[in-house]
Parts: sequence; structure tokens; C-alpha cells
Amino acid sequence: MTLPLFKTVGIAGIGLIGGSLARDIRSFALAERIIGWNRTPANAHRALELGLVDATVSTLEELVRTCDLTVLAMPVNILVDRLPDLLSLTGPGQILIDVGSTKCAITDAVTLHPNRSRFVACHPMAGTEKSGPDAAVDNLFKNRFTLLIDPEASDADALNRVRALWEAVGSRVDTLSAEAHDTTAALLSHMPHVLAYALQRTITDAERTKALNAQFAGGGLASMTRIAHSPIAMWQPIFHQNRDHLLQAIDDFTLQLQAFRSAIDEDNPDKLAKLML
Amino acid sequence: MTLPLFKTVGIAGIGLIGGSLARDIRSFALAERIIGWNRTPANAHRALELGLVDATVSTLEELVRTCDLTVLAMPVNILVDRLPDLLSLTGPGQILIDVGSTKCAITDAVTLHPNRSRFVACHPMAGTEKSGPDAAVDNLFKNRFTLLIDPEASDADALNRVRALWEAVGSRVDTLSAEAHDTTAALLSHMPHVLAYALQRTITDAERTKALNAQFAGGGLASMTRIAHSPIAMWQPIFHQNRDHLLQAIDDFTLQLQAFRSAIDEDNPDKLAKLML
Repeated sequence: MTLPLFKTVGIAGIGLIGGSLARDIRSFALAERIIGWNRTPANAHRALELGLVDATVSTLEELVRTCDLTVLAMPVNILVDRLPDLLSLTGPGQILIDVGSTKCAITDAVTLHPNRSRFVACHPMAGTEKSGPDAAVDNLFKNRFTLLIDPEASDADALNRVRALWEAVGSRVDTLSAEAHDTTAALLSHMPHVLAYALQRTITDAERTKALNAQFAGGGLASMTRIAHSPIAMWQPIFHQNRDHLLQAIDDFTLQLQAFRSAIDEDNPDKLAKLML
Repeated sequence: MTLPLFKTVGIAGIGLIGGSLARDIRSFALAERIIGWNRTPANAHRALELGLVDATVSTLEELVRTCDLTVLAMPVNILVDRLPDLLSLTGPGQILIDVGSTKCAITDAVTLHPNRSRFVACHPMAGTEKSGPDAAVDNLFKNRFTLLIDPEASDADALNRVRALWEAVGSRVDTLSAEAHDTTAALLSHMPHVLAYALQRTITDAERTKALNAQFAGGGLASMTRIAHSPIAMWQPIFHQNRDHLLQAIDDFTLQLQAFRSAIDEDNPDKLAKLML
């Protein structure tokens, strides 16, 4: 496709994901103009200061009305609440996408919406534990997968332009059903986040009850608990919306952990070696 | 202390830890000469090629006899087997240290040894998932803690010189009893490794049974499973030697994970938020 892909792109939520996408859209010249909106006005102001966006607007409605592509980069609970009304505002040629970590709840919210085909549900499988406009970085999506969900529910022109956007920022693109996505995300992302939070809590409690000096930890623990520093307000609604798949993934992990525990308890090196392979 | 701290340092096991220590000893001019020994002769040859050591010897006994400080950087099962005989070879002024990840089994093996006081049990809390001489890097120990275990069991001159060595390579040094060390290492290192291995196994099984495409994973999963790529032959003896503390740490974690699971299952945001804090 010819550049720029879009005249005006709107970023609703100019934090880690929205802000990083804004950086890439600018550096790859994918839009003529980038407009931002943020729930917290101070963050909108900071995004302007950082040059992530060219201008800001004060309401989400104004953003959607103004832009040919609006990226909804907000916690998934707010997304589910707002998406139907925002989708009602889209006129011919306009496109709405989200970047949320759950997909069944979000697509269910607009299944019967008259403008459903102007919405493309996306999940870029990329991120860090940081948040806010200052967390935005270049090339966050490079060589990561972005999943386009239930592609048959979107108009071909919308799907193609959104695919071109993700590919232009270096992402690999694949498609999945919402159901398959939520199973996948539970195993590859949501459950590992629960493990990280639970591990962090185990260490914190041991510092108190066993006088553990957690400063002694090497790089392994830091790796394992890095994502436990992700914002709670973002992750709690994800755990809620993807509860059933997440519980299944936690149970899958727990079974494996119990197998490791047994092999260690029994001092069974063959069993342990097979598990570790 | 005046440099070089040692005339001849011997590195027994020139892999990630031994090789990285050799690099730092050379770059900070802490020894006049570094001699290596490796169980796998090809790795000894490679260490010479990389310039990690000035020369190699073909037996561990020769190494200990030759050096004023010998660093035993080998899997903890081999360490426990070899330590008593090697310690018998140390003459006046010679020092033996280990860098093993367990300490009760290792110190128990030499408690009544006539040369016990020439041995300083060490655990540098540093590493990566890589192994072999090519995995050796500069400054691996910088700003990490090195724990000196049961310091009262070592001669003051040995302890002071070993402390000076670790401080010279940038490590922070603290002391612990073997028992406190093994509790600490179980929580901060050994249990997190079991979690990483169990998570990796969960994902591998899901790829097979649920046709999961693990390539979709973002950076979070990569962080959580990085240390699952650590060599099994090194970790299995650690899990064995520190079994009781490790099982306790796994149980501590499992309780936390169950609390998270319940809070998610009950859709109890207050309970979940408290756990995540």
C-alpha cells in the first residue's frame, strides 16, 4: 500500500502500547497526523511534550469522529464499556481497532453492532512491565506477533489496512478466533503473569516471616518477577474477563509443578530429567 | 590488600562461572597467572583459545597442588564427591573455594576434615542460563551478592583474601550459615528455577495437546522461561542436595498460587488486589 496508510490516526490511551505505536507510526511515516486522547489529562499533556502525538482532544468521542483510524489502547474493562458507543460514531471508511489482551469479552460486546465490520480486534503480543507515555519505546512490535481476531467479522478494506499497519511497524501478523486467542493468551501471557505475581508475593512474605534478604537474589529471580511489576489496574480486568481459560491454564501449570515436586520428593532423577527436557 | 591478590589462581571448571571469574581476575590483575582444568578436555582447550586461562593441567589434583587459590566451579554432586580428597592436598597458605549453589551438603562433606579451615564456601548469586567457556562474560558478579558460608570455619587469612577477591570483581559480600543459605537459595533461586522448568513444560505440552502456537508469545513468557534453558546436569543435583528446603519453598509458592486462583475463581477484586500488591 502507498504511504501514508492513514491521514489521521487517533491514539486513545497514550501509554506503553499506544505511545509505542504512535512512535512507530511517526518514524515509519504511516500517518499524516497523530492525535491523542488520555483518560488522565496529565498523561495527554506528557504525550504532547514527548512528541508522541501532534495534538490532543478532550473527549474520546471527538477522537473517533476525527480520525480515519482510532486505536483503543486502554484497560479491557473500560474497552468493553466504551466500545459499542464509540463504534456507533464511526462513519464510512473509518476504522476502530483495539489492542486489548482479552478478546471474547470485547468481540461479544459488539457482535450484533450495525458497525461491527468497521472494528478490527487486534492483540499485539508485545509489552513491558512499564506504563504511561514515558514507557513508550521504538520498535516494540518488531518481530512480535500481532493477532487479528475473527477477521471475517471485519470489512476487507479495514482488515487489509490494519494488517498493513502492523506489518509496517515490523510485526508478524496472524489471525485467530476470539476463543482460540483467549486460550492462547491465557497460557502464553495471563497465567505467566499470575505466576510472577504469586512468586513476588511468596518472596515478599518470606522477607517478613523468614527474615529472607531478597537483595541476595541473582538475575534469575529478577527475570521471573519482572512482569509482576505490571500495573494491577490493567491486569485485574484481564484476569476477570479471561477467567475460565486462565483457571484452566493455572491448573495445567499446577499439575506440572506437582509432577516436579513429586520427582524431587521421590529423588527420582529419571522422572525429573524427563520433565525438565 | 596489594595486587595481585594471588600468585596463581586455578579454575576447576572453566564454564559460565569459572570462566567469568577468570575474565575478571585477568582484567582486574588479581593474579599473576591463571591455570585451568576442565572435565571435558575440549572445553579446557576452548578456554585456552579464548584466553580465559594461561595454561591448563590434566588433573584436578595437579591444579590444587600448583595454585595458591583454587576455585572449584563444578556441578554440586561432583563437588561433594571430590572436595574431601582435594582439600587433603592443600598445604600451608593454600586456599580452596567453591561456587556451588547448595551449601549444607558441601560443608557437611568436610566438617571434620583436618584442612577444613583452608576451605571457604562461597556462593556468588549470579549467572545466566548459558554454559561452557563461551558463556563467560565480564563483570558477571558486579553488584551481585556473594555469600561466604560459615565464615568461622575458615582461617582468617583465607577468609580475608577470598572476600578481597569477590570485592575486587565488584561483588557485594555477606556471610550466612549453611542452613540459612540453603533456605535463602531455595526461595530466591532453586524454586524459581523449578517454576521456570514447569512453565516451559506446560507450554510444550500445550503445543502438542492444544495445538498452541508458542511463537505468538511476547517478552513476558521469554522472561519467565529464560532460566529453564539452564543445563539440567547442573540443576538436578542442586534440587537433590537442597531437597527439603526446596520442597518447602515450592509449597510456599503453591499456597500463594492457590490464593490467587481462588481470588480469580471467586471474582474477588479486593482479595486479588491485596495479593498483587
